[in-house]
Amino acid sequence: MDPRLIEELLRQVAGGAMAPEEAMARLRDLPFEDLGFAKIDHHRPLRKGYPETIFCSGKTPAQVVEIAARMKAHGNVLGTRCSDAVLNAVAAAHPEAARNETARTFTILPHPPEMLEGYVAVVCAGTSDLPVAEEAAVTLETMGCRVERINDVGVAGIHRLFEQRPKLEGANALIVCAGMEGALPSVVAGLVRAPCIGVPTSVGYGASFGGVAALLGMLNSCASGLTVVNIDNGFGAACAAAAIHRIANGVAL
Amino acid sequence: MDPRLIEELLRQVAGGAMAPEEAMARLRDLPFEDLGFAKIDHHRPLRKGYPETIFCSGKTPAQVVEIAARMKAHGNVLGTRCSDAVLNAVAAAHPEAARNETARTFTILPHPPEMLEGYVAVVCAGTSDLPVAEEAAVTLETMGCRVERINDVGVAGIHRLFEQRPKLEGANALIVCAGMEGALPSVVAGLVRAPCIGVPTSVGYGASFGGVAALLGMLNSCASGLTVVNIDNGFGAACAAAAIHRIANGVAL
Amino acid sequence: MDPRLIEELLRQVAGGAMAPEEAMARLRDLPFEDLGFAKIDHHRPLRKGYPETIFCSGKTPAQVVEIAARMKAHGNVLGTRCSDAVLNAVAAAHPEAARNETARTFTILPHPPEMLEGYVAVVCAGTSDLPVAEEAAVTLETMGCRVERINDVGVAGIHRLFEQRPKLEGANALIVCAGMEGALPSVVAGLVRAPCIGVPTSVGYGASFGGVAALLGMLNSCASGLTVVNIDNGFGAACAAAAIHRIANGVAL
Amino acid sequence: MDPRLIEELLRQVAGGAMAPEEAMARLRDLPFEDLGFAKIDHHRPLRKGYPETIFCSGKTPAQVVEIAARMKAHGNVLGTRCSDAVLNAVAAAHPEAARNETARTFTILPHPPEMLEGYVAVVCAGTSDLPVAEEAAVTLETMGCRVERINDVGVAGIHRLFEQRPKLEGANALIVCAGMEGALPSVVAGLVRAPCIGVPTSVGYGASFGGVAALLGMLNSCASGLTVVNIDNGFGAACAAAAIHRIANGVAL
Amino acid sequence: MDPRLIEELLRQVAGGAMAPEEAMARLRDLPFEDLGFAKIDHHRPLRKGYPETIFCSGKTPAQVVEIAARMKAHGNVLGTRCSDAVLNAVAAAHPEAARNETARTFTILPHPPEMLEGYVAVVCAGTSDLPVAEEAAVTLETMGCRVERINDVGVAGIHRLFEQRPKLEGANALIVCAGMEGALPSVVAGLVRAPCIGVPTSVGYGASFGGVAALLGMLNSCASGLTVVNIDNGFGAACAAAAIHRIANGVAL
Amino acid sequence: MDPRLIEELLRQVAGGAMAPEEAMARLRDLPFEDLGFAKIDHHRPLRKGYPETIFCSGKTPAQVVEIAARMKAHGNVLGTRCSDAVLNAVAAAHPEAARNETARTFTILPHPPEMLEGYVAVVCAGTSDLPVAEEAAVTLETMGCRVERINDVGVAGIHRLFEQRPKLEGANALIVCAGMEGALPSVVAGLVRAPCIGVPTSVGYGASFGGVAALLGMLNSCASGLTVVNIDNGFGAACAAAAIHRIANGVAL
Amino acid sequence: MDPRLIEELLRQVAGGAMAPEEAMARLRDLPFEDLGFAKIDHHRPLRKGYPETIFCSGKTPAQVVEIAARMKAHGNVLGTRCSDAVLNAVAAAHPEAARNETARTFTILPHPPEMLEGYVAVVCAGTSDLPVAEEAAVTLETMGCRVERINDVGVAGIHRLFEQRPKLEGANALIVCAGMEGALPSVVAGLVRAPCIGVPTSVGYGASFGGVAALLGMLNSCASGLTVVNIDNGFGAACAAAAIHRIANGVAL
Amino acid sequence: MDPRLIEELLRQVAGGAMAPEEAMARLRDLPFEDLGFAKIDHHRPLRKGYPETIFCSGKTPAQVVEIAARMKAHGNVLGTRCSDAVLNAVAAAHPEAARNETARTFTILPHPPEMLEGYVAVVCAGTSDLPVAEEAAVTLETMGCRVERINDVGVAGIHRLFEQRPKLEGANALIVCAGMEGALPSVVAGLVRAPCIGVPTSVGYGASFGGVAALLGMLNSCASGLTVVNIDNGFGAACAAAAIHRIANGVAL
Repeated sequence: MDPRLIEELLRQVAGGAMAPEEAMARLRDLPFEDLGFAKIDHHRPLRKGYPETIFCSGKTPAQVVEIAARMKAHGNVLGTRCSDAVLNAVAAAHPEAARNETARTFTILPHPPEMLEGYVAVVCAGTSDLPVAEEAAVTLETMGCRVERINDVGVAGIHRLFEQRPKLEGANALIVCAGMEGALPSVVAGLVRAPCIGVPTSVGYGASFGGVAALLGMLNSCASGLTVVNIDNGFGAACAAAAIHRIANGVAL
Repeated sequence: MDPRLIEELLRQVAGGAMAPEEAMARLRDLPFEDLGFAKIDHHRPLRKGYPETIFCSGKTPAQVVEIAARMKAHGNVLGTRCSDAVLNAVAAAHPEAARNETARTFTILPHPPEMLEGYVAVVCAGTSDLPVAEEAAVTLETMGCRVERINDVGVAGIHRLFEQRPKLEGANALIVCAGMEGALPSVVAGLVRAPCIGVPTSVGYGASFGGVAALLGMLNSCASGLTVVNIDNGFGAACAAAAIHRIANGVAL
Repeated sequence: MDPRLIEELLRQVAGGAMAPEEAMARLRDLPFEDLGFAKIDHHRPLRKGYPETIFCSGKTPAQVVEIAARMKAHGNVLGTRCSDAVLNAVAAAHPEAARNETARTFTILPHPPEMLEGYVAVVCAGTSDLPVAEEAAVTLETMGCRVERINDVGVAGIHRLFEQRPKLEGANALIVCAGMEGALPSVVAGLVRAPCIGVPTSVGYGASFGGVAALLGMLNSCASGLTVVNIDNGFGAACAAAAIHRIANGVAL
Repeated sequence: MDPRLIEELLRQVAGGAMAPEEAMARLRDLPFEDLGFAKIDHHRPLRKGYPETIFCSGKTPAQVVEIAARMKAHGNVLGTRCSDAVLNAVAAAHPEAARNETARTFTILPHPPEMLEGYVAVVCAGTSDLPVAEEAAVTLETMGCRVERINDVGVAGIHRLFEQRPKLEGANALIVCAGMEGALPSVVAGLVRAPCIGVPTSVGYGASFGGVAALLGMLNSCASGLTVVNIDNGFGAACAAAAIHRIANGVAL
Repeated sequence: MDPRLIEELLRQVAGGAMAPEEAMARLRDLPFEDLGFAKIDHHRPLRKGYPETIFCSGKTPAQVVEIAARMKAHGNVLGTRCSDAVLNAVAAAHPEAARNETARTFTILPHPPEMLEGYVAVVCAGTSDLPVAEEAAVTLETMGCRVERINDVGVAGIHRLFEQRPKLEGANALIVCAGMEGALPSVVAGLVRAPCIGVPTSVGYGASFGGVAALLGMLNSCASGLTVVNIDNGFGAACAAAAIHRIANGVAL
Repeated sequence: MDPRLIEELLRQVAGGAMAPEEAMARLRDLPFEDLGFAKIDHHRPLRKGYPETIFCSGKTPAQVVEIAARMKAHGNVLGTRCSDAVLNAVAAAHPEAARNETARTFTILPHPPEMLEGYVAVVCAGTSDLPVAEEAAVTLETMGCRVERINDVGVAGIHRLFEQRPKLEGANALIVCAGMEGALPSVVAGLVRAPCIGVPTSVGYGASFGGVAALLGMLNSCASGLTVVNIDNGFGAACAAAAIHRIANGVAL
Repeated sequence: MDPRLIEELLRQVAGGAMAPEEAMARLRDLPFEDLGFAKIDHHRPLRKGYPETIFCSGKTPAQVVEIAARMKAHGNVLGTRCSDAVLNAVAAAHPEAARNETARTFTILPHPPEMLEGYVAVVCAGTSDLPVAEEAAVTLETMGCRVERINDVGVAGIHRLFEQRPKLEGANALIVCAGMEGALPSVVAGLVRAPCIGVPTSVGYGASFGGVAALLGMLNSCASGLTVVNIDNGFGAACAAAAIHRIANGVAL
Repeated sequence: MDPRLIEELLRQVAGGAMAPEEAMARLRDLPFEDLGFAKIDHHRPLRKGYPETIFCSGKTPAQVVEIAARMKAHGNVLGTRCSDAVLNAVAAAHPEAARNETARTFTILPHPPEMLEGYVAVVCAGTSDLPVAEEAAVTLETMGCRVERINDVGVAGIHRLFEQRPKLEGANALIVCAGMEGALPSVVAGLVRAPCIGVPTSVGYGASFGGVAALLGMLNSCASGLTVVNIDNGFGAACAAAAIHRIANGVAL
C-alpha cells in the first residue's frame, strides 16, 4: 500500500468522508502494506528491475506456465530449477521466454532491466559446477548486473585462476561456486578485497555428502569475510551479490 | 614485496648491476609477494586501517602477549575469543589496550582508523547473543566502520524490531546474530534492501545442536539474498560487512 | 472387551456358572480389552467417527484394496500416501471412494462424521507444501472437524498471512506446514492464543536435508508453546488437532 | 497498543484535534501494537495470568536479578534453567521469590494466577527426568493450571503407569517426559484421548546422543496425535498444554 | 580342513609316509583350516545344516546363478536380497530352488536340515516390516530352526501382541522387527525371559532416517538385555537366534 | 501380583466371600500384575537371583543410598555408573556393599546367587575398555553367571586373542568390548559358535565420535550373528548374555 | 612456463631487448607457471607417464568425447566413473580406447607407460567391492605400476587372505578396498610393513550409511599407519600408491 | 613361533619323540606365531628400531609408569597424549625419559634409532595445530626419520608456504596438519610429487565440529593422491610416513 494512500485515507477521515470505524477496519486489513511488505512481493521488484521468481522444482509444467502468465503481467519473470518438461511447456506457452539449458532457467523480460555500472564475477571451480554458476549469472543479468564468467578454475589447476586476477580484482562482488572440498572460495577471498559469496555445490561423491563437505569447508574458511549460501543456491548468491552491486553503484537503499 | 622493488630489481638487471641468474633466484624466492599475498598478511592491513587479528582461543596468555607485541609495531591489533586470563595478561603487558568484556576482545590501536561514512547495523536477537554481536561490532570499529547496535529484538518480541526499522533501513550492511531457530536474519532480510549477513550463535539447547539449527535455518532462508557465516563467527561477519561498507563509501577496490 | 462383559463373567463365577480357573484363563487371554486397547483399534474409531487409516506407502494396490474392503465393513476408511496406482485400484474396487489428488488420499465414509462446532485452521507456507497440508485437512474432515485452509502465506510474503489474521485467531487449533527454514509456525504461534502444531515438510534442497532444517527450526522456536510432528506428517498433526478440537467442543474425554 | 487507542486517535482526526500527518506518523511508529504484537510481550501476559519468563541459562546472576526486578513491576515472573548462583542471588534480591530446586526455577507472583478447572497431567518416565517434568509443572502452575504429577512410570515398570490410568484419563492435556528410547509418550498417547505432548529428555548415554534418540522415537511414534517439543523443553510443553487447558475451560481465544 | 585330516597327516609323518618338510608345507598352506576358519566358509555349514549364503544385492543374475551352482555341490544354498530378475534367473537355472517373494529369498536344499526341538519366534510390528521378518524366518528354517511367525502386532494395537503371549513365552529366542520408532522390541523384551534380538527396519519416513530412529530406539531401550542388529538385517538376526536355539537344544558348541 | 492371588480372588468370588464388583475393581487396579509385569520389577528378580539395579549416573549420593536401602529389603542390589562420591556414600551407609573401582559398581547381596554351570566370556580389546567389560562381568556374577575375563586382546595384537581360543570356544555366550574401529567382536564372532554380543565403547578420539565408529563397525559386521548393544552398555550386554546362559543351563523359561 | 623461458626473458632484459616494464608485466601475468603449476595440469603428466583424467560422472557423453579428443593430443587419457552411454560414445569416437566394464573406465594410451619395478597390491574384500578395486588397478597401470589383484579375501573368510600373504608382503604399497564395517585394511595393515591405503566402499546397507561406517572404521583403525581416502575413491588411492611406488623405484622426486 | 620350531616339532613327530596328538594340540595352540603376528607386537619393533607406544589418554599415571617400565626392558618407548600428571609421574619414575610439552609425549630410548637418509616434512597450518604436528615429529624421530618442521604456513598466509617450497619438494613424504577448513594439505599435495598425508586437527569452532570439517575437506580434496588419517592422529600419520621413508631408503620390506 502506497504511503500516499494512507495520507489520503486519513484526509478522508479528517474531512468526514470516511467514518473512523471504516478507516480503522481498512488499516487493520492492510497494516503491513504501509510497512512496505507487499512491495517486497509485488511492487518493489517491478520498480527496481527485479524479476518475479518461480522456483519450479516440485511444480508441474502446467502450474509453472500459469504462474508465469500471471506474473508477466506485472513485470519480469525468472524460472529456476526447470526440468526439460517445464522448459518445453514454457516455450510453448510463452514464446518470448528465453531458456538457458545449463542454468535450468527461463526468463520472460517484458521490461528489460537497465544495466548497472561495473560487474559481478561468477567464478566456478569445475565444469560440473556450471549449472549453479549459470543460475547465479542468469539471475544477476535479470537484475541488471553485468556478469563476468570465470569458469573451470579449480584449485587443482590454480594457475588458471591467477591468470584471471584482473577480472577478479575488478569486480564489485564475487560469487564463487565449488563442490568437493569447496576450497576455491577461500583462495579467491584471499586474493580480492570485494565481498565474496561462496556457493557450495552438490558436486562430489562419498564423503562429500551432497555438498555438505563443501559447505563446511566454506563456513570454516580461514579467509575472513567469506559468506556462504545454501548448497547449489546460485539464485540466493545472486540476490546477495546484486544488493552489493547496487550499493557500489550508489543506488539509494 | 612492494611492486617498486620488482621494478628496481629489473632496472638493476637492465643496468647490469645484477646478473639475470641472481634476479631469477630472487624472483623464485618471492614470487607471491608481487601477487600481493604478503600484503594480505602484513602490509595491506596497515595501509587500509585493518587490524592484525589474534584468534586467542587455544593460545596461552604469554603467547598472546608476545604476538601482540610483535604486531603492534606494524599496526593495529585486535584480539578475539579472549579468556579472562588473556585479557588480564594483555592489560598488564600492553596498558594501552582497550578491553571489551562482553565481546571477549582487546584492541591496541596505535593508528586509530578513520571512520567511513554511514554505518553498519549489528542486530542481535537476545541478550545471550550479545558476545557474538559485540565481537562483530568491535571488529567493525577497528576497521573504521561506525556501528549501530540494535539489541534484543528477537522474533518473540518482533515489534521491538519494527520500531528499529529506520535504523535498519539506513545501514549500508547488516549483521544479524541469532541462536535457537535463527529466524531473525530472515525477517530482517525481508525488511531491508541492503545486504544482510546472518550469524548463527550457539545459544540454545537440545536440538539446537550448538548452533546447527540456527545455521540450517539461515542457510535455508526463503528471504533470498541472506548470506551466512560460521556459528558464533562475529569476526568473519564483520570482515564481510566492512568490505561492503567500503564499497558503499566508494573506497577503491 | 466391554467392561460389562467382565462384570458378566464375574457374575457367572459368583453364580457358579463358570469355574474360577476358566475365568482366570479368559482374563489372562483378554486383559487388554478391558483396558480399552482394542477399542483404539476397532471399536473406538467406529463409535467416535474416526476413520480407520491405511498408510499405503509400501503396500501394493491389491493389499490396500483388500484392507479397505475389510475396514469399510466396520466403519469409515482413510487411505494416505497413495500412489496413482493405489488410487486407481481403489477407485475400481470401491467406487464410493472419494480421492484427493493433492493430498494423495482416498476416503470411504459409509458413516459420514457429524461436524463439530468451530474449525481447525490448516496453514501452508508455499504451494509445494500443499500435499502435506491437504493430508491434514482431509484427515480432519473425516474426523468431523471443519477446516479453514490458508494457503501460500510463507514468510517471504508475510502480509498475506496477516490478512488472514481473523481466520487464524478464530481457530480452535492450528496446523502450520512449512519446509525450507520452517519459520512460519513460529510466526503464527506468536500471533494466536490457540494451540499450534508445526509440520515440517521435506520441501527444500541442499542443507534442508529433506526437512531436517525445518524440523530443527520448529523444535527450537522461541515462540513458546509450538509443538511439532514428524516431517510431512500431516496425518499425525490432524489427529492432534482433532483431539484439541474435540476438547474445545466439550466432547467428554 | 490498545485498539481503543486507535479508535481514539481516529476520532481525534475526525474531530480535527489531530492533523492527519501526525496521526500517520504515530501509526507508522506503532504499527505492530494494533496487531497485538506488543501484548504478547507485555500486556497479554499480565492480563491473562501468564508469567514473564527469564531463560536464565547463559545469563549472570546480576542480569537475572535486574531483569526480574523490572518484570515484577508489570506482572508475574518465572525464571527457568537457574544455576545455584542464580537462585541464591534471586533469593537475596527478591525475598518473595519461591524457588524449586528440582525444576531449577524461581517464581515471583505478585498477582497469583486464578486456577482453571480440571488439571494437566505431567508424566515422567524416571527419576532422572524429574527436572524437566518439574519445569513443566511449575510453569503450568504459574499459568493457572493445576498439575497432577505422575512420576517414575517408565516402560520398564509399565504396570506402575497402568495403575495411574484414571489420573491419565482425567486430564485435559498430558505432558510426558522421557529420555533413553523415549517410548513412554507413545504408550501414554495410546491410552488416552486427550492431547499428549512428548518431551524428550537428555537422560541417557552413548547412542542416546543427548536426547536425540528419544526425540526421534517420539517424532516417529505410531501413536498418531502425539506432538513433540525440543529436548528438555519442559517450559515449552507447559505453554502448549496450558493453551489446550484454557480451551477445555472455555476461556475465549 | 577336517581335523581328522590333520591327524591323518601327522600319522603319515609318524609312520614315515610323509617327509616332515612336505607336512610343514601343507600345514603352512592351510594354517587356518585347522583353526576351523575354512569350515566357516565351506565345511562347517555343510556338516551343521547351515546354508551357504549369497547376498544378492549388487550381484547380477548371472553371477548369482553361477555362485549358486558352485555352492549347491557342497551343501545348502540361501540367496537373500533378491531382485525379481535374480529370482527368475535362479528359477530357470536351478528348478529345485524354492523362492519366497516376501522375503526376497531363494533356497536350494539338497540336504534338508534336521529340525531342532522348540522354536524361535519371529515377531513383526506391521505388514511393511514383513520382508525383513520373512528373511529372518526363511534363514532360520534353512538352519533347522522351527519358526513361529507373529505378525502385525505393533504397539498401536498392543492387545494383539498380548494375545500372543503364550507363543512369545514359549520361544527359545525371539526376533522382533519394527520400523518407525522401533518400540516393539522393548515391549516384547519386557514380557519374556528368553533372549530378544531387535531388528530395526527402514520402514518410516521423514525423521525415521531410513531406520535410524528405530535403531537408536532399540539401542537405548530401557528393557535391559535386548540386543540389536543392523537395519533390515533379518539374516543376521536369524544367525544369532539360531546360535541361541542350538544352545537351548544342547547342541555341543 | 502372584497368579495364586488371582486364583484366590476368584475363589473368594466363587465362594461368595467377595462381591463381583469388588473383584472387578481390584482386577482393574492391578491388571498388569497378572501379566507378570510387576514381577519384572520386584518379584521376578528376587525369585531368580537377579539384582535390582540402580543406574546411578545423574542421581545424587543421597538418592542412591536411599534407593539401595529400600531395594535391599527385597533382594540383591547392583549400582552401576557410580561416581566416587556415590561409592563413598554407599560404603558409609551400607557397609556390607562390595565396590568395584574399575567397573564403577557396588553390590549388596543379601541373597548371594547360586552359580550356574559353565561360564560367559567377557572379552576386552584394550585396557581402556576395562570399565565397560568389568561392568558386564560384575553384573553377570550378581546374576549367577561365572565369568572368564579375557583382557587386552585387541586386533593389534591378535595372537594374544588366539592363545585364548579354548576359553573363547568353551563359553556359552561371549561379550566382546571394543572401542576405536570396534573390529574385535567381528573377529571373535568368526572364531566361535556361541552367541556373541558386541559392546562398542566410547574409547577413541576424533572420528570415533564417542563410540559411534565402533557401534557402526559392529552393526555392519560381516560376521553374521553378532548382535550389539548401546555404547558402553556393559550392563545390558550382561543381561542378554545371562539370558542365553540360563538357556544353556536348561533353566525353564 | 619453462624455467628456461624466465632465464631467456631476464637475458633479454639484461641485453636491452626487453624493457623492464614489459618483463614485469609478463612476470605478473604468468607467475605461477614458473612454480610449475601449469605442469601439474598439462606438462608433468605427459612427461611422467601420468594420464590426464576425466571424472565422467555428471558429464554428457558428448562432453567426455570432446575432452578426450583434446587430451589425447597431449598424452594418455583415463576416463573414470563412466556410464554405459559414455563408454559407448567413447568407443565410437575413439576406437583405440580400451574399456573396462568392471572399473567403469576407458583408457587411451598413445604413449604406453613404461612399467616400474615391483608391484602394487590391490586387495578387495568382496566381489561387490570390485568396481572400486578395478578403478584403482586401471589407474595404476596407466601410471606405469604393475598390479597384483587379490580379490574376495574379506574377513569372513580370512584364511583366503592369509594364503595371499607372500603377495601382500612383496608389494611396495597396498590398496585395500572394503565396505560394510571396513575391517580388512586394519587386518592387512597389521600383516605387512609397506604403506597401506584403505578405500572404504559404499557396499552395504542400513547403518553402513553409504560407506560411512567403513570410512570411520578405517579412520579409527588401531593398526597404526593405515591412511584413508574418500569412499569409493579408487582413483585417489591409486595416485597415492603410485607416488609411493615411484619412490620405491628410486624415481627422483 | 619361529618356523624352525615347527620344523623341529615335525622332526620330533617323524622321529617318534612326539605323539601326533600332542603335535596337533601344540599346532592348534600356536598357529598364529608362524604367521608373524606376535612379532608385530613385541619382536618386530625391537628389531626395527620402532618404539613401543603407550596411548596415555584414559590411563592413570601409575598405569603409564608401570607399562613403560615393562616396555623399556624390551626396547624404546613412546608415550603419547600425556597429561601433565602423566608426564610428571614418568619423569619421576623414569628419569631418562625425554618429554615434549607441545607434543604431549615422552620418550625412553635405551636403543637410540639409527637415522635414515633424507627427511620427512611435517607441515602445520597454524600455531594451534602444533601439538598434533609435534606428536608426528616426535614419533618419526623415534623411528629413525629426520624431520623438517614447517610451521605456521596456513593458506591465510600462503606466501609463507611457498617460501618453503624447496624443503617441501625435498621430502620423501609429507605430513600436513590443518584444522578449520583443512585446505592446506590440498595445496601442499598440489605442489609436490612425494606422498602427502593429511592430518585434520580439532582446531576450530562452530561448524568445524571438532575437526570433521577439516576431515571432510581432506577426504574430498581434488588434489588426487592425498591420503588422510583420523582427526588429531599425528602418531598414525607418522607411522605411515615412516613406512614410506623406509622404502625411499631402500630398506627391505
